[in-house]
Amino acid sequence: MAKTRVPLRAVAQANDDFFYERPGSLPGTLHIEENSPPPEIILIDYNEAGAIRKEIATPEECTPYLDTKSVSWVEVLGLGDEGILRRLGQVFNLHPLILEDIVNVPQRPKVEEYEDQLVIIARMVIPKENGSGFYSEQVSFVLGKHYLLTVQEEPKYDCLESVRSRIRSHKGIIRKHGADYLAYTLLDAIIDGFFPVLEDYGEELEALEDEVVSNPTHQTLEKIYRLRRELLGLRRAIWPQRDAINSLIRDGSDLITEEVRVYLRDCSDHAIQVLDMVETYRELGSGLMDIYLSSVGNRMNEIMKLLTVISSIFIPLTFIAGVYGMNFDTEKSPWNMPELNWYWGYPLCLAVMAAVAGGLVFFFWRRGWFQNFSTIKDDSSVTNSAETATGSPSAAAEYKRLPR
Amino acid sequence: MAKTRVPLRAVAQANDDFFYERPGSLPGTLHIEENSPPPEIILIDYNEAGAIRKEIATPEECTPYLDTKSVSWVEVLGLGDEGILRRLGQVFNLHPLILEDIVNVPQRPKVEEYEDQLVIIARMVIPKENGSGFYSEQVSFVLGKHYLLTVQEEPKYDCLESVRSRIRSHKGIIRKHGADYLAYTLLDAIIDGFFPVLEDYGEELEALEDEVVSNPTHQTLEKIYRLRRELLGLRRAIWPQRDAINSLIRDGSDLITEEVRVYLRDCSDHAIQVLDMVETYRELGSGLMDIYLSSVGNRMNEIMKLLTVISSIFIPLTFIAGVYGMNFDTEKSPWNMPELNWYWGYPLCLAVMAAVAGGLVFFFWRRGWFQNFSTIKDDSSVTNSAETATGSPSAAAEYKRLPR
Amino acid sequence: MAKTRVPLRAVAQANDDFFYERPGSLPGTLHIEENSPPPEIILIDYNEAGAIRKEIATPEECTPYLDTKSVSWVEVLGLGDEGILRRLGQVFNLHPLILEDIVNVPQRPKVEEYEDQLVIIARMVIPKENGSGFYSEQVSFVLGKHYLLTVQEEPKYDCLESVRSRIRSHKGIIRKHGADYLAYTLLDAIIDGFFPVLEDYGEELEALEDEVVSNPTHQTLEKIYRLRRELLGLRRAIWPQRDAINSLIRDGSDLITEEVRVYLRDCSDHAIQVLDMVETYRELGSGLMDIYLSSVGNRMNEIMKLLTVISSIFIPLTFIAGVYGMNFDTEKSPWNMPELNWYWGYPLCLAVMAAVAGGLVFFFWRRGWFQNFSTIKDDSSVTNSAETATGSPSAAAEYKRLPR
Amino acid sequence: MAKTRVPLRAVAQANDDFFYERPGSLPGTLHIEENSPPPEIILIDYNEAGAIRKEIATPEECTPYLDTKSVSWVEVLGLGDEGILRRLGQVFNLHPLILEDIVNVPQRPKVEEYEDQLVIIARMVIPKENGSGFYSEQVSFVLGKHYLLTVQEEPKYDCLESVRSRIRSHKGIIRKHGADYLAYTLLDAIIDGFFPVLEDYGEELEALEDEVVSNPTHQTLEKIYRLRRELLGLRRAIWPQRDAINSLIRDGSDLITEEVRVYLRDCSDHAIQVLDMVETYRELGSGLMDIYLSSVGNRMNEIMKLLTVISSIFIPLTFIAGVYGMNFDTEKSPWNMPELNWYWGYPLCLAVMAAVAGGLVFFFWRRGWFQNFSTIKDDSSVTNSAETATGSPSAAAEYKRLPR
Amino acid sequence: MAKTRVPLRAVAQANDDFFYERPGSLPGTLHIEENSPPPEIILIDYNEAGAIRKEIATPEECTPYLDTKSVSWVEVLGLGDEGILRRLGQVFNLHPLILEDIVNVPQRPKVEEYEDQLVIIARMVIPKENGSGFYSEQVSFVLGKHYLLTVQEEPKYDCLESVRSRIRSHKGIIRKHGADYLAYTLLDAIIDGFFPVLEDYGEELEALEDEVVSNPTHQTLEKIYRLRRELLGLRRAIWPQRDAINSLIRDGSDLITEEVRVYLRDCSDHAIQVLDMVETYRELGSGLMDIYLSSVGNRMNEIMKLLTVISSIFIPLTFIAGVYGMNFDTEKSPWNMPELNWYWGYPLCLAVMAAVAGGLVFFFWRRGWFQNFSTIKDDSSVTNSAETATGSPSAAAEYKRLPR
Repeated sequence: MAKTRVPLRAVAQANDDFFYERPGSLPGTLHIEENSPPPEIILIDYNEAGAIRKEIATPEECTPYLDTKSVSWVEVLGLGDEGILRRLGQVFNLHPLILEDIVNVPQRPKVEEYEDQLVIIARMVIPKENGSGFYSEQVSFVLGKHYLLTVQEEPKYDCLESVRSRIRSHKGIIRKHGADYLAYTLLDAIIDGFFPVLEDYGEELEALEDEVVSNPTHQTLEKIYRLRRELLGLRRAIWPQRDAINSLIRDGSDLITEEVRVYLRDCSDHAIQVLDMVETYRELGSGLMDIYLSSVGNRMNEIMKLLTVISSIFIPLTFIAGVYGMNFDTEKSPWNMPELNWYWGYPLCLAVMAAVAGGLVFFFWRRGWFQNFSTIKDDSSVTNSAETATGSPSAAAEYKRLPR
Repeated sequence: MAKTRVPLRAVAQANDDFFYERPGSLPGTLHIEENSPPPEIILIDYNEAGAIRKEIATPEECTPYLDTKSVSWVEVLGLGDEGILRRLGQVFNLHPLILEDIVNVPQRPKVEEYEDQLVIIARMVIPKENGSGFYSEQVSFVLGKHYLLTVQEEPKYDCLESVRSRIRSHKGIIRKHGADYLAYTLLDAIIDGFFPVLEDYGEELEALEDEVVSNPTHQTLEKIYRLRRELLGLRRAIWPQRDAINSLIRDGSDLITEEVRVYLRDCSDHAIQVLDMVETYRELGSGLMDIYLSSVGNRMNEIMKLLTVISSIFIPLTFIAGVYGMNFDTEKSPWNMPELNWYWGYPLCLAVMAAVAGGLVFFFWRRGWFQNFSTIKDDSSVTNSAETATGSPSAAAEYKRLPR
Repeated sequence: MAKTRVPLRAVAQANDDFFYERPGSLPGTLHIEENSPPPEIILIDYNEAGAIRKEIATPEECTPYLDTKSVSWVEVLGLGDEGILRRLGQVFNLHPLILEDIVNVPQRPKVEEYEDQLVIIARMVIPKENGSGFYSEQVSFVLGKHYLLTVQEEPKYDCLESVRSRIRSHKGIIRKHGADYLAYTLLDAIIDGFFPVLEDYGEELEALEDEVVSNPTHQTLEKIYRLRRELLGLRRAIWPQRDAINSLIRDGSDLITEEVRVYLRDCSDHAIQVLDMVETYRELGSGLMDIYLSSVGNRMNEIMKLLTVISSIFIPLTFIAGVYGMNFDTEKSPWNMPELNWYWGYPLCLAVMAAVAGGLVFFFWRRGWFQNFSTIKDDSSVTNSAETATGSPSAAAEYKRLPR
Repeated sequence: MAKTRVPLRAVAQANDDFFYERPGSLPGTLHIEENSPPPEIILIDYNEAGAIRKEIATPEECTPYLDTKSVSWVEVLGLGDEGILRRLGQVFNLHPLILEDIVNVPQRPKVEEYEDQLVIIARMVIPKENGSGFYSEQVSFVLGKHYLLTVQEEPKYDCLESVRSRIRSHKGIIRKHGADYLAYTLLDAIIDGFFPVLEDYGEELEALEDEVVSNPTHQTLEKIYRLRRELLGLRRAIWPQRDAINSLIRDGSDLITEEVRVYLRDCSDHAIQVLDMVETYRELGSGLMDIYLSSVGNRMNEIMKLLTVISSIFIPLTFIAGVYGMNFDTEKSPWNMPELNWYWGYPLCLAVMAAVAGGLVFFFWRRGWFQNFSTIKDDSSVTNSAETATGSPSAAAEYKRLPR
Repeated sequence: MAKTRVPLRAVAQANDDFFYERPGSLPGTLHIEENSPPPEIILIDYNEAGAIRKEIATPEECTPYLDTKSVSWVEVLGLGDEGILRRLGQVFNLHPLILEDIVNVPQRPKVEEYEDQLVIIARMVIPKENGSGFYSEQVSFVLGKHYLLTVQEEPKYDCLESVRSRIRSHKGIIRKHGADYLAYTLLDAIIDGFFPVLEDYGEELEALEDEVVSNPTHQTLEKIYRLRRELLGLRRAIWPQRDAINSLIRDGSDLITEEVRVYLRDCSDHAIQVLDMVETYRELGSGLMDIYLSSVGNRMNEIMKLLTVISSIFIPLTFIAGVYGMNFDTEKSPWNMPELNWYWGYPLCLAVMAAVAGGLVFFFWRRGWFQNFSTIKDDSSVTNSAETATGSPSAAAEYKRLPR
């Protein structure tokens, strides 16, 4: 009944929305979203000898598999049916708070140890097909002695298919190890799933670098803002995940063997790399903001220069023309605008105007105010040279062998 | 007598005012605000078998209930009567400093352990009905073996009603547990009470994002400033609360059972989520400030462009008109403005003016100075496309199922 | 002889000057400032039965009181006489470095434990009477078994009077406790003395918020800068003080009883509150800086708008007038400015001018360039509404009681 | 098969790209880049008595040397052949994850301890020959009891030649020590290799300081941005390396003798120095950004000043000329522009114009608007004086000896 | 041979250059700079009874003094002779890395413990005689049981003279203590040597505060930048020094007695004070940058105001003059500029112009655009009042005694 979820666009855009219970709701209340798909349950049971895969209808069908020595991986895809989820809780003997964390998505990634279970809440990201932004969903792990329960929010996409195929085709050493190794493999796939997303952002950053130099518009700024917002979201997805993995390595539950712990160190390295890249991209993003702001200032300078050049040249000329437009009566006095009656009066006047204009043009040219046209052309060549000088493989290949 | 309280508007706005004693006042002095409502005292005594609720007039009426095995929840609503509060202190055998912390609101949230009591100072926030800003009040807990004393600053509103009803109607497991579980439930309700406030700020942030792009005014800036100030206040309310809960989990008083500690971990997770969101909103807020500043610069650019275009086109034309307004005597010399006497003089002059104007317009058009009109229209469409691309549920629903 | 002290105005303004010895001076050298007042010494000796107060001339008069069980508080006010200070050192058996720290003010607040003495260096702030800025002076404590020596830099003002009167009139429990409780009481008064200073700054911040919105001038910026500088100074006074108190609580010298330690926790809470407020004010201060900078930009925008509106309207008109000021000879050709001879020529010309001007005015009106006048009026109303919406007690009182 | 690598220009430019596996790929998969050169393997076996150097074709040829007491340094240069690398893994009995870290470059620098091996992943930088930017490659160390395996990504250049020659020519104490000393020597050479790169950046920073003062263009900004980006990359290369070395010193594997640990402290000092310099350069870089932005503003000010001076002087003059260009009929009334018929009318008019112009010039001169020309010349002299005052050795040499 | 040193101006200016070895050079290689003066060696041997001072030619002459119970202070001034330095290493039995740290200056300040020696690398700063910037040099200490070896980079100046004279004249307690007390005394002198440098920077900051308010030019910005750069350098000199002293106190080598450790706490306090001041100055410096940037904006505003006022007043007037300069033929039609023939036409026209001008002036005056002249004068008075209100001693002296 008390189902509420933050529906903010701003937050949703940053992929960092949070589940929140209506204040005062009962602990253990499950909040099923209306458009959430009903859960599919798939059981994969394997050992070194073989592997079976069953789509099962009721959680209770899992029971006979859980205590056998073969590894049982129970995959639940979708959170749309409270009844089934509660029965799942009974089958796996889950603490009400575990079930709450699994169902009331999104939760912050974390690791929690219970008596004979280890609960890992992770966040999986999938790059959008249009190369901008990412989908994200929660994957919850409950690791027991011989089983692993994973619950995914969204059945339609994930990045775990390769693990399934590895079990199916007995590739690698996965079928020789226990459920802890399976959990590691899935976690590793989830962490590695951040890299393609980062790659997209790296490309976007590169495009923005070009745009901010060549043609910065107000939309460029919005793009930078959006990029920074999404990187903020990404950082908040990976940061607690890294902590969670580190606490897995450090605190050492009995459910994780020493051997798998070595593998987890590798997984932790990847999480740190993701975090490093996110931080780097965020710093580059704020550097872009600086360049953008200075571009706005530079553009203003150019506009003002143009105005100043045109005004400064024509205003004095117009003044001269105005002087000789005055109607002083030349006949009343020889001092009254005698120029008007000179034989060379008009050509002389034009010559003076041309001299004034020429002098001002020369003045501006000397101060370099006309350079900006060539500068604009230079800009692109600079960018090109920057491109070629960046240690691309071909450049590296031309590197003369240093004497040894 | 020595009653003083920071009455700063700035601070009050940020909901972060602090109680302060007049320097050198006696420790244990209670400072009753004049407009503070007199305390109502409500006793709720329950166990699994049943629950009674009594409004009681004097603190001493509680005494018989405190040592029974049933859980006694003594609620005090309002801080307006020093005498009653002091007698309460005697009934519950409170250290003078506890009583001071309870009465001299606001205090910083914290947990303190005394010999057989655990004192928790918490801060409750309630969203304002107009959806902007929040009320905040202090809730103090004194947890004993079989009782819980809670003192609220303001009797008129809180977010604990659901807990009361749960006790009344024997919903959930609350009546099966002791006073520590009750304290947890209330704390949890208080922490969850931050989420609606955050939701309001999220919506405000979203509205500001639209405003800063479409129509930034000086008031937009003030709103951003106010938002950041209030988020600062919110952060200062939740930050020490999170620390307090963590120290409850870690330091493990005897008054809190191991089972309730598991629940407190959940509560701590929620506090971290609140803090995360507050920090995210603050970063987004300062990103908005950047966009606003650049909007001001962009707008200036557009104004200057307009000025420059109009000046640059008409100043040369005016100069030409000025030239032919000069009064050189055409009769004195054939070189004196012979154009004035040409048959096509005037049309030619107009044609030259048109050519100059056309050339300048072409020049500005080539440099893209007329794009900003279309750009302004583009802005909104960009915003729309950003909206549609942000992983809204419908977009997610269209996501093609990835091959597995 | 080697007396030197940083005389920097910048530093003095920020109340953060530091004592420094001439490099290589002897450890234990005492540096007496020339205009420093000669020390007054006051002995207050009390126990539960009674209290005596004596102004004494020579430090040696204290000796008989120090080892009695009654608490002896030796107050030294002023640092102007090296001889007396050295004899004081002998009477209290002070380590040369303690004496140096006491005399060579200002020192950084700290706690140091010696064999049978505890030295606390604290910093007391007193708000200036004009409500802007504060005086600050060092108070040094030497706590022994049955005595407390306090040394103040400046005899003329402090915030410890209430403590003295409490001893005199046997108010509270101070005369029932030992020297450690006295030290706590004084420390607490010093920490609480920061609140009135903070209140002044809060009011100043509020005034600046109004000023920066309604009428930002260059002086506003200087005030913000000064405010931030003084808050920096305040932060540097309270930060080490908080650490010092925490180390008193944690490290637990024998000279401080368990009971007083409970009181010190309260004192530490207050120090944290002060620090929190200082940090909040500093963040608000830098937010004001942002608003100020954007105000400068906005004002520029308005100036430019006005220039652009006036120029854009009159420059084309002037051009038209210029055209008909040309002197093409209408008699030489029917094409030469025939308009000049039209019957309705001049009115038509004025009508065209009016049409152009009207069109431009309409264009600017459509783009909203005339809104800023109303905007300026709106500004104040916005501020007002912000004022009323900030949870002032009256607003809170109108809050409809939420259903429970 | 699943070979992917981040190909981002932005990232590649910052030298901070990361290897990432396709999500879900098998742990232990080796990813060989297509254009990677095939590995050369060189064995250097030495003890105090002598040293031999062999280029070997297959990893298995190393086997007989590994367990002898002489130190065997197996250098692998290039990562282009998966088969050879896997056989190398077998010969050295490497954990699959070690091999993965060695081959799947770039990895984050780190130290990992395995049963009887210590793995160090380091990053070597080489300044580019054109003095701008750097190449970077991974060097992996596997340290055993009597052997050291090093694997370099790129055979063409490194900074380890001096170590090889030291072994060859028995210079220093290297041949008296074991494999741990060899590892230290190489690590030290790698860390010292950062200094020439820093020197290049220091020079670039200096050139930018000149440029930003004398002639800031948009390209200056891009250069600053690029500098900051590359320093970010450098920081991310040295930061984990410092941590790695510190953990080597602290955690103390058995494979590293106490004596070598003393040397590692020296190496750690150098890493801290590199980090310090990088941080300093980054701060200076962002200071330059501030100067650049203010230069843009200053330049705008100068442009506007020029426009204002010229407009302010000529617009009033043009107005006066315009007045006397009016055609009021002097004959209709003695009040209609009698000046036109004055004997001294025109000279007087010119005199008034000159007076107005002179007055305005004087006004601007008083306000200092013409100072900027001299200011510009001052700028360079300031720079010069700054140069001479910076404690260059010659200046230091002239320092008068202080009395002692 | 492999002698290299970072010769960067940028770095040298910030006094933060670092020694770096050519990558791969032998550990223990000594790099003698060419223009380095040859070392003078001075032996000061003292105990309570007496003190001798000898200038000695060869390090070996020290040997007989080192093991006697009297304290032997061997001062080496200058690093210009590798042979002497190596023999010094043998006499004092120095580890090659110690010798390297002593000779290859500059090194990062640090403390390192060897078997029976304690090595302290410190950095001494000396204010330049022109009051801007500082010289800095390395002082290395090797503390043994009965001797102290100090090595200074530059013989010409230091701040240790007072210590030498104290030994000579038996002032203070220095001759009653051992070599550890001597080391403390020297360290203390070095730390105290930072204060005069800070005083110079404080004065410079104060001058910049005045300049940035009264007359900000581009050079002001460069000065701020230089100040921040040098404070960065100062911070990097004192930061590791503080850590080094703290580790001396904490880790407690046997070579330092408990008594001297108490003195070192004092020295550590001073180092923290220096660091505090440096940080404060850095924050004030970046506040100045903000003021400077806003000054640039304000100045622009004033320039634009002037332009706008002049343009807005004269452009409409010029338009009116232009209208009556039109040549419509008044004889062709009574509607054609009949004003030209009016009796009061010209005076009326002038009156209209005056009215328009007056109206605009009134409009600008109402909007406060003419206030800035008075504002500029106000600025200085504000500064003055700020000066008088900053708790200068005289102001403090006038403070009315608060009632007690």
